[in-house]
Amino acid sequence: MSLARRFVLKLSCPDRVGIVAAVSHLVAKHQGWITEANHHADAMVGRFFMRLEILADSLPFNIEAFREQFALIADEFDMTWSVADSAQKKRVVIMVSRQEHCLYDLLARWHADELNIEIPCVISNHETFRGLVEWHGIPFHYVPVTPETKEASYEKIMDLFEENAGDVMVLARYMQILPPQMCEKYPGQIINIHHSFLPSFVGAKPYHQAYARGVKLIGATCHFVTSELDQGPIIEQDVIRIDHSDQPDDLVRYGKDIEKAVLARGLRYHLEDRVITFNNKTVVFR
Amino acid sequence: MSLARRFVLKLSCPDRVGIVAAVSHLVAKHQGWITEANHHADAMVGRFFMRLEILADSLPFNIEAFREQFALIADEFDMTWSVADSAQKKRVVIMVSRQEHCLYDLLARWHADELNIEIPCVISNHETFRGLVEWHGIPFHYVPVTPETKEASYEKIMDLFEENAGDVMVLARYMQILPPQMCEKYPGQIINIHHSFLPSFVGAKPYHQAYARGVKLIGATCHFVTSELDQGPIIEQDVIRIDHSDQPDDLVRYGKDIEKAVLARGLRYHLEDRVITFNNKTVVFR
Amino acid sequence: MSLARRFVLKLSCPDRVGIVAAVSHLVAKHQGWITEANHHADAMVGRFFMRLEILADSLPFNIEAFREQFALIADEFDMTWSVADSAQKKRVVIMVSRQEHCLYDLLARWHADELNIEIPCVISNHETFRGLVEWHGIPFHYVPVTPETKEASYEKIMDLFEENAGDVMVLARYMQILPPQMCEKYPGQIINIHHSFLPSFVGAKPYHQAYARGVKLIGATCHFVTSELDQGPIIEQDVIRIDHSDQPDDLVRYGKDIEKAVLARGLRYHLEDRVITFNNKTVVFR
Amino acid sequence: MSLARRFVLKLSCPDRVGIVAAVSHLVAKHQGWITEANHHADAMVGRFFMRLEILADSLPFNIEAFREQFALIADEFDMTWSVADSAQKKRVVIMVSRQEHCLYDLLARWHADELNIEIPCVISNHETFRGLVEWHGIPFHYVPVTPETKEASYEKIMDLFEENAGDVMVLARYMQILPPQMCEKYPGQIINIHHSFLPSFVGAKPYHQAYARGVKLIGATCHFVTSELDQGPIIEQDVIRIDHSDQPDDLVRYGKDIEKAVLARGLRYHLEDRVITFNNKTVVFR
Repeated sequence: MSLARRFVLKLSCPDRVGIVAAVSHLVAKHQGWITEANHHADAMVGRFFMRLEILADSLPFNIEAFREQFALIADEFDMTWSVADSAQKKRVVIMVSRQEHCLYDLLARWHADELNIEIPCVISNHETFRGLVEWHGIPFHYVPVTPETKEASYEKIMDLFEENAGDVMVLARYMQILPPQMCEKYPGQIINIHHSFLPSFVGAKPYHQAYARGVKLIGATCHFVTSELDQGPIIEQDVIRIDHSDQPDDLVRYGKDIEKAVLARGLRYHLEDRVITFNNKTVVFR
Repeated sequence: MSLARRFVLKLSCPDRVGIVAAVSHLVAKHQGWITEANHHADAMVGRFFMRLEILADSLPFNIEAFREQFALIADEFDMTWSVADSAQKKRVVIMVSRQEHCLYDLLARWHADELNIEIPCVISNHETFRGLVEWHGIPFHYVPVTPETKEASYEKIMDLFEENAGDVMVLARYMQILPPQMCEKYPGQIINIHHSFLPSFVGAKPYHQAYARGVKLIGATCHFVTSELDQGPIIEQDVIRIDHSDQPDDLVRYGKDIEKAVLARGLRYHLEDRVITFNNKTVVFR
Repeated sequence: MSLARRFVLKLSCPDRVGIVAAVSHLVAKHQGWITEANHHADAMVGRFFMRLEILADSLPFNIEAFREQFALIADEFDMTWSVADSAQKKRVVIMVSRQEHCLYDLLARWHADELNIEIPCVISNHETFRGLVEWHGIPFHYVPVTPETKEASYEKIMDLFEENAGDVMVLARYMQILPPQMCEKYPGQIINIHHSFLPSFVGAKPYHQAYARGVKLIGATCHFVTSELDQGPIIEQDVIRIDHSDQPDDLVRYGKDIEKAVLARGLRYHLEDRVITFNNKTVVFR
Repeated sequence: MSLARRFVLKLSCPDRVGIVAAVSHLVAKHQGWITEANHHADAMVGRFFMRLEILADSLPFNIEAFREQFALIADEFDMTWSVADSAQKKRVVIMVSRQEHCLYDLLARWHADELNIEIPCVISNHETFRGLVEWHGIPFHYVPVTPETKEASYEKIMDLFEENAGDVMVLARYMQILPPQMCEKYPGQIINIHHSFLPSFVGAKPYHQAYARGVKLIGATCHFVTSELDQGPIIEQDVIRIDHSDQPDDLVRYGKDIEKAVLARGLRYHLEDRVITFNNKTVVFR
């Protein structure tokens, strides 16, 4: 990431006249250089969404001062908002079971510094990938999950997430359902890849469901985890064409390519603060 | 269609050794020239599917003689089968309401002789397109459908289909639900375009459902009509990318482009005898 | 088009601090309601691009007054800019030869009032579509083009374009190469659909070129016409998958579906003033 | 790969009557169970292509005996042909430079036994990935390539390929141009991934070329290497949508996802003996 340091502002608020003017006036007053700007006004719900990237060095103050200044506007317009600093790498904790494709893919992107992240640790309910992860110099935690230990296991996982100061938890084909209280504790912080084109084929074995229905395309969905299974806000989706000659095993194989691509795109949008949620949906400023 | 005349054989039967050998031996014995051949063995259901195109002029007999000869093999292998003659244009009755896109699209293809069909008539529950259809020299029948007249209307439509010796009925965004007895009377003959990526968003207003769920792609599905709404065998599907800035009206507009393309492809597969149904699914030999 | 009347501002200028602030301040000062806003800063060429949609009724003055006010800002920032009025339907002159697919497609969209345009006339070097066009109540002009009459023919075409107060000329698979002086007379006003994924397969018979090379996808390109054949700024492109079984005639047939979809999307972007050209490339604010 | 052992026959020959009958008769005579069959007759070049998968255990003899029997038919029809044994894992030598994405992707598939291959070694002109490769238990050979050592380096590489009994050499973003004599020594055995949608943007820095031309989609091409740079038979291609906001670095990043997916698909087709070349083009029986 050779990009110059930026502050990334994202916000949403009730739509009205003057929002852009107020925000851009503040930035311009301090000679802030905007490198990227996106707006969206959703007429059906009367809400306005905005994202700005500003060159940090073009501003005469630091991020705390910027936040202080901005808070006045935010108050006036009743905004939900945040400002992130691109120099602050986000800390992504990866959860994985025994499927390799999303993990390898994320490690390759991390190795190439493509995502501007730190991976403080990988957590798994199997030992399968300890060697690979540790070879990358990343700590690996084996936390088995059984019906009896379930509660303790998720306590342990939440402790690890906290100890590692995680910003985002990625379920990289982690084949367990998180308990509701954990989902509710980290709203908008846990990202899952579901192996179907939601809302089709919720739940278990979606590729077998797809085979049984005889669909001609299969897909994958990257979404925020909420306490309702596979019902969270959708960040990204994609599909791939199949045909009658593909058996469920083929769908699983094709699906892996879509899953890792969709997860990586969705995660990237989130890491770059391009995603704003509202009403269980997302605005994604690509 | 400048292609030489062909006989198109399609079949399915329980899978076993010797099917291809038996069929191809019959064809070769009579010096039949095979221009296209497809096979599919579905291991999960133990069934074999096959399609052959044979140059009619390479055979020493006509289609009836071919059928007689073939019936012996078909019996031996317990085949469900048919032989079509490419010189016999299929007769396609189009059903339409007030949306223009699929109708214009089919008329353009008919005008360019792209589909090798005759359109003996267009039937509609509105007068909207009488002028356009009649300008093309195609009879137009206005058959209004109201709660009171429903039964008589569908009797009328079935009569028209019979009188016109229809082979296929195409619901080109015909916004009415056919009665079950009509669906059952013409199995594998009625083709619908549904404006969602089934099995998502069955029923009414799928684009509004898609907007409400916040999906990132929308789609369309071409399928055979059965008595269960939107549950028939899927012939073809496709999707198009949308984003948060698209309101339901935009989805409707984008969707039209997918609908007409998917309907045309699915219809073409069916007209060229490329589709074989089994277990409420299709094998499509493209 | 049931949308409320809007003014659409688009501009580009050298990038510097304060552009968005100046523009949005002007709009906010007059209580202008922004329904859509897009920005793009191209760091490699140091240029800024912007598009705003403003509710006309939210402003206290008409479009001329708005232009006067805006001219002051435009001067200060050295902008290339325009303001369009959505209530003013653009006048699209369609040029066609003997292929039907793009013409039918545009007429269907016009019939559904999907593009918010008027079609003052269709011009063709063949009589093929006179009946269809005139049935729609649109004047049809037959202007044959032969090597001898070429110069006079294009004079005639330019006269028709002027007499009809054309805003845009669409080459809907018009199989003639326009003379350079005509291309130069209407920069950014003539839109072509080329039947390949440019820059592959420039010039004649691109599908045959694609077949010869053995590519696995074919495409179409909507672009502004310049005096260099198939070298103008690209507005939109798309592709479709083919395989070894497809002969050149199949590619032509598949291609038609891509051509009409890509032309319609590209044209729509242009009609809605979403396209800004710079350095023989386009910014498309979708 | 839990599939039962199969013999895979592929062939091409001048088209004439009786080919399928002769081949399928031979198989049926010995009670051979065909699990997959594909045919293609290319009318423009008068050539016939065919691929069969036969359950090895259904035949009363081994692969050598099958080859002997088949040679008689092959002679009669002047076939170019081969029979492969699915129990014999193909040996894939991977060549890599400093880009990680294709290497990680192939290692993940190898780890999951998705491709049914052995990787006897990885060869690179950089030490970058020694650790990762060796962690997987795969030998790593560092063979630097400089203008002075070029000839000796490629001798060394060919020696390694021979010593390791390589069946396929994969250029997984190996950023060197192979010498013509090496390309000619292994026709149809060296597979490259080129980072553009060929024939557009041959040669160096295709993403920068794509940026300069302003295309709206970028692609990747998997092809057999021949002595003419980027001109070999194309096995697989795909594209991804970009827009004006993407700078060359973004194209490089997006491109990586397409490159690895296209390489993996193309390689898989080749490994499963689904690709037949003729006239610098491929038939791919997917």
